[in-house]
Amino acid sequence: MDRSQDPPAKVPRHAADDYTTSMAERRRAFARERTGAALEHVGRFSLDPATLPGNIENFLGAAQVPIGLAGPLRLHGEHAQGDFYVPLATTEGTLVASYNRGMRLLAECGGVKATVVEQAMQRAPAFLFDDARAARDFGHWVDAHFASIKAAAEATTRIGRLVRIDHYAVGPMLHLRFNYTTGDAAGQNMTGKATLAACEWIAAQHPGGAKFLLSGNMDTDKKHSRLNMLATRGRRVVAEAVLQREALARVMGVDTAEAFAMRQVSNVGAFLAGSSNNGSHAANGLAALFIACGQDVANVAESHAAVTYTQLLANGDYYWSITLPSLIVGTYGGGTGLATQRECLELLGCYGSGGADRFAEICAGVVLAGEISLASAVIHGDWVSSHDRLGRNRP
Amino acid sequence: MDRSQDPPAKVPRHAADDYTTSMAERRRAFARERTGAALEHVGRFSLDPATLPGNIENFLGAAQVPIGLAGPLRLHGEHAQGDFYVPLATTEGTLVASYNRGMRLLAECGGVKATVVEQAMQRAPAFLFDDARAARDFGHWVDAHFASIKAAAEATTRIGRLVRIDHYAVGPMLHLRFNYTTGDAAGQNMTGKATLAACEWIAAQHPGGAKFLLSGNMDTDKKHSRLNMLATRGRRVVAEAVLQREALARVMGVDTAEAFAMRQVSNVGAFLAGSSNNGSHAANGLAALFIACGQDVANVAESHAAVTYTQLLANGDYYWSITLPSLIVGTYGGGTGLATQRECLELLGCYGSGGADRFAEICAGVVLAGEISLASAVIHGDWVSSHDRLGRNRP
Amino acid sequence: MDRSQDPPAKVPRHAADDYTTSMAERRRAFARERTGAALEHVGRFSLDPATLPGNIENFLGAAQVPIGLAGPLRLHGEHAQGDFYVPLATTEGTLVASYNRGMRLLAECGGVKATVVEQAMQRAPAFLFDDARAARDFGHWVDAHFASIKAAAEATTRIGRLVRIDHYAVGPMLHLRFNYTTGDAAGQNMTGKATLAACEWIAAQHPGGAKFLLSGNMDTDKKHSRLNMLATRGRRVVAEAVLQREALARVMGVDTAEAFAMRQVSNVGAFLAGSSNNGSHAANGLAALFIACGQDVANVAESHAAVTYTQLLANGDYYWSITLPSLIVGTYGGGTGLATQRECLELLGCYGSGGADRFAEICAGVVLAGEISLASAVIHGDWVSSHDRLGRNRP
Amino acid sequence: MDRSQDPPAKVPRHAADDYTTSMAERRRAFARERTGAALEHVGRFSLDPATLPGNIENFLGAAQVPIGLAGPLRLHGEHAQGDFYVPLATTEGTLVASYNRGMRLLAECGGVKATVVEQAMQRAPAFLFDDARAARDFGHWVDAHFASIKAAAEATTRIGRLVRIDHYAVGPMLHLRFNYTTGDAAGQNMTGKATLAACEWIAAQHPGGAKFLLSGNMDTDKKHSRLNMLATRGRRVVAEAVLQREALARVMGVDTAEAFAMRQVSNVGAFLAGSSNNGSHAANGLAALFIACGQDVANVAESHAAVTYTQLLANGDYYWSITLPSLIVGTYGGGTGLATQRECLELLGCYGSGGADRFAEICAGVVLAGEISLASAVIHGDWVSSHDRLGRNRP
Repeated sequence: MDRSQDPPAKVPRHAADDYTTSMAERRRAFARERTGAALEHVGRFSLDPATLPGNIENFLGAAQVPIGLAGPLRLHGEHAQGDFYVPLATTEGTLVASYNRGMRLLAECGGVKATVVEQAMQRAPAFLFDDARAARDFGHWVDAHFASIKAAAEATTRIGRLVRIDHYAVGPMLHLRFNYTTGDAAGQNMTGKATLAACEWIAAQHPGGAKFLLSGNMDTDKKHSRLNMLATRGRRVVAEAVLQREALARVMGVDTAEAFAMRQVSNVGAFLAGSSNNGSHAANGLAALFIACGQDVANVAESHAAVTYTQLLANGDYYWSITLPSLIVGTYGGGTGLATQRECLELLGCYGSGGADRFAEICAGVVLAGEISLASAVIHGDWVSSHDRLGRNRP
Repeated sequence: MDRSQDPPAKVPRHAADDYTTSMAERRRAFARERTGAALEHVGRFSLDPATLPGNIENFLGAAQVPIGLAGPLRLHGEHAQGDFYVPLATTEGTLVASYNRGMRLLAECGGVKATVVEQAMQRAPAFLFDDARAARDFGHWVDAHFASIKAAAEATTRIGRLVRIDHYAVGPMLHLRFNYTTGDAAGQNMTGKATLAACEWIAAQHPGGAKFLLSGNMDTDKKHSRLNMLATRGRRVVAEAVLQREALARVMGVDTAEAFAMRQVSNVGAFLAGSSNNGSHAANGLAALFIACGQDVANVAESHAAVTYTQLLANGDYYWSITLPSLIVGTYGGGTGLATQRECLELLGCYGSGGADRFAEICAGVVLAGEISLASAVIHGDWVSSHDRLGRNRP
Repeated sequence: MDRSQDPPAKVPRHAADDYTTSMAERRRAFARERTGAALEHVGRFSLDPATLPGNIENFLGAAQVPIGLAGPLRLHGEHAQGDFYVPLATTEGTLVASYNRGMRLLAECGGVKATVVEQAMQRAPAFLFDDARAARDFGHWVDAHFASIKAAAEATTRIGRLVRIDHYAVGPMLHLRFNYTTGDAAGQNMTGKATLAACEWIAAQHPGGAKFLLSGNMDTDKKHSRLNMLATRGRRVVAEAVLQREALARVMGVDTAEAFAMRQVSNVGAFLAGSSNNGSHAANGLAALFIACGQDVANVAESHAAVTYTQLLANGDYYWSITLPSLIVGTYGGGTGLATQRECLELLGCYGSGGADRFAEICAGVVLAGEISLASAVIHGDWVSSHDRLGRNRP
Repeated sequence: MDRSQDPPAKVPRHAADDYTTSMAERRRAFARERTGAALEHVGRFSLDPATLPGNIENFLGAAQVPIGLAGPLRLHGEHAQGDFYVPLATTEGTLVASYNRGMRLLAECGGVKATVVEQAMQRAPAFLFDDARAARDFGHWVDAHFASIKAAAEATTRIGRLVRIDHYAVGPMLHLRFNYTTGDAAGQNMTGKATLAACEWIAAQHPGGAKFLLSGNMDTDKKHSRLNMLATRGRRVVAEAVLQREALARVMGVDTAEAFAMRQVSNVGAFLAGSSNNGSHAANGLAALFIACGQDVANVAESHAAVTYTQLLANGDYYWSITLPSLIVGTYGGGTGLATQRECLELLGCYGSGGADRFAEICAGVVLAGEISLASAVIHGDWVSSHDRLGRNRP
């Protein structure tokens, strides 16, 4: 088939009423005709297309991602307390089993303490001047006018609050990093809109005006960065547990002293590699939770960064913590209200207003469970054999 | 509801026959009872649970992630040639529209050239010795026995080929990074198994034995790292295009010279922030493609890294390239054979054997389209307004 | 000679009066006897040993590092204005000639604008708690008691002023980064002492006490770090110039458009390599200035980080800036008062009180000159030939 | 004084015979006249100006940097064996005393094992093509012609050997990193010249030619980078010791278990900060050694990177290693033959041919001593008090 016909055929859209079953079917027919793909299952969804404006364009159908149920995850958060059954949407065999094993051990050891320590969502415009001196002086002007800038930003949002503006000077520029709290929304759009309003206020009020680019790439949105790890993006959450020596040996076949010794190896490997994470695989649990619960899955890029810190206690027990410095979650807006996504958030008691801190604590607890399980498998030597047993999925 | 009952209730499983509609329903009932969540839509899937062994444990149901159709993406790859209609599974409004806009511009400018320049999947064991001298000498021994190590590794796999072993010495350790080609599979499990066999051969043959940890965290699996960007993980793919000055102005409202000037700002922002990516939002397109097409979505962590390199040409046209140095994809194994996932790969002509290079080229082309569209929106100033129009999704 | 005699012979010291010519001679004799090294030139110094307490222990003699004179560097700083002749202490042939060439071009182009945009010196203790929640709450307590903490810190110093305390939470810890201005001193000792006093005040006043380590390695002293680049350590200084197209072509043989095109290549190389600096060789000029002018040369580790940002102007001229985000300099205390060091600072009009900002501007101007010269040599192709001519130094 | 006279006065040079005492005096007079600086001590050097061609231009005089003698450092290297007395040129009070203390502890604990594990010096040209495909194919061509490229490179040098060429593909470029061994020379000039010859051979032989920039900034010369840490620049050296619990407590007042617990804190601080070094202050000892021994001091930028790896042993003793992955040293060429510099190398038995590996081992041993001493001071709490005692140097 020669695909290079010119001009290319455009995907069908209905100007007035595009979010319908029939338009989805029309697009599937269009695609089927051009590619031979049946798209039969893609068309077999139960969600109502009328709920989709604001979430998708050119709606075609739905991906069905299998969900496994892990748990209970026993949590002692400030927002999440008790036993949680966790929906993990993934196609990677062993993942659910491994997280489940970690949760079992944690429950035996008394559960996980989870704490949200900070919240901040950003938009980081760059302001461009003739020289560095003008940029620096502009920074002082911004500091002096913070209250007005805050008012301009917050006029665009019911929920977002501008907390502070960080400055990063380079050459004739000043990168400003606007830090907001955004309630239970992840907040990228909210902060984009608020910051635009703030920048427009600045450009109008600053003597001589001010040229800006709404993002100078220091947000850093949808990208891992050291800056995000340092300065928090989304929520900074810590999950902690003390693993009893006897329990780790019984459930995982691993001695706590050996685990602590091997942590020194992993730390060095991650440090030398210039890694975003000195732990194992936070991305696995987070991606699975994000898909199930209607999060912006691209934020796995920022959210998978993590810092593992452990200590072997005098009695042989093992303190293990994981810090997620840039976990981006929301329980309001975005994809959280869609059919299965909302159900999964409800399964965790996190849907809607007031849910985001709870959901963040759950995320951190899930990650900790996965870290302990995988690290133990690597040390114990059953990592490969378990994937052989649970992860064989060739057609 | 007090969730801290002790002992915790275990998720129901059927020892012999767990991948059935009824077991999924039993688990939903179990969860419903404990949480009140209806899980009605989660239970309305069309995929056959019998296809799921190797992909999920404790199957509960399916997440329905809406798919939008973008395109056509006009590609001049070595494997992907012609016009492609691209399924993007996301809940983020504007995403499909924005990528679609980028594809339109690219098609007008003659399309995208995409090239896979390298392939490598890794497992990186750490070998531990009494001192650095022993570790160094062990490295020489490994080099001298490469053929035998390769034979031991490849005995475990039909497809994987051990290409080389990189060495990273630290203290009394030697981290070895085994680099494989893995055909059309993403290859993490394959390389894990092969490397374990290689390590066991080494431990048996090396005089005095050899203590190892199968991963010393230099793989770096499910984590962004500078090492992955440098040494390639998965595929290293480049997408390139020349944007005609007139076309960029007409479609995006942006002048090429202005775009190039603003790229200097973005480069500096990314560099200073210690970012994984000096571009805009590769993670968006990749996450949407990965969900639709049965990829391991956690690999967004590695795959979203990117390097943008551009030049303004003498005639005012604009050369734009994006390099994805650690794009992890497969079209065989993993989640690729599931119901909707397979259909989406078929929509792209990428399902199964021979599809991975083609799919990698498509991924790079999609990312390039998204970069151009978002960067233009930031410069032109319609970034916020388009999200306001397409991304309003509050309940 | 068998050096492993046991117990080892200790270096001679005089308990009461160690800073004398005769004790230096006695130590040279001690060393001469054990190693055969003549140490003749090492003993031929003109500095007065009595000036050395506080700068060295076990004084043996002096290294003679040749100084070359470059310049004039034409500067339009806020503190350094006019033409400066710059002492560069180095043993690397070509270095002085290359910097000199850069200064000549810059003078022809109207000189360098240099600006100190920020000042901060740090000490970063880690406070350790039982869990993350306690660490977080401690952070709030610190914020609430900032005035008292500031008073405790500043009680130890006439000059240092505590400006703010940054927080970085990890696991059950809170890293606090105390940011001071330190006048014309580099300030590491001053801030160490002040922060210790602050920590002791905190430990005494915080309910339940507070365990701390005076440095948790987030200072990050004598080490490059992304954090230092982001948050400033020492002074953040920018040097800028507009290179006229004709002048660059005449002096360097390089076209501005070619230089700008090649900058895209260098940017990408630095970004991909995970480099501390997207420019060429700031460390060269800084090390040479630091040795000549009595700076702490180990701070080249932090100070050599730099961000180059350039734009090609519409008229073909070339705007070039370099930002040194963590330039650590002092003109008071440290080695600045020693014999030759003071003379070199006086040569620049920077010795003593009020000199540090001026010296920082000069450093940035020198670095810019070196960047332009080396980058031009690489592009023009005379890089190797000039080293062949000026850098042949085999015995 | 108005310094902005135009045209600027040029520094005096003698076209034929510039390396003389009288020309140095003439330049001092020139500078004295314009700045009022006496430059008396700068003029009181014992080195012979006739030895300076190849090391400096516009010779003015010499910096006198005080040298302290530390040691003995007891080493069990492959090249350095026995007790060494170490010349440290610095103006930072406490530095010599602190390193000395570390050496004393190490001698009591049986000395330091030091090992050079790898050697490599680089030049990294970027080759530019029309598209990524051409760049990739060029890479294959380079691999296929390695023997000829090696011959072309090595034709320029008696000592340098091209070991391998690493490839880094980005957009339409291929960065090649030429890795050489360079004997006892640091080798930057040698590898620059050899690589230029290789590139010229390539440009002449490659079908269609090849455009290159001799450095695409992936060398990464005079700059810290993750790439240098991973791939070695200069020498990769490890120093190791086992600290007896009793000895650490007696000499430093610190318990090994406490030291190991605090190492977890430092590791996390360095990791989070994006630091070049998870240890304390390698730059201090290295800068002092480099100045004393005629090294290129700007290479502190690369050389100060380090990885600390430790383990607490079952008997309570403490294994401590430091790895310097990019230590750049030479004992031949550069500044090594100058008057005091040569004497200091002779003091260590390292001058000239065969000395570089020995010197590298000494560097690593010195760094280890400094790490142990400073870390102990931080833990024990005498860090500030010792600086107060030994580092007070205000005029």
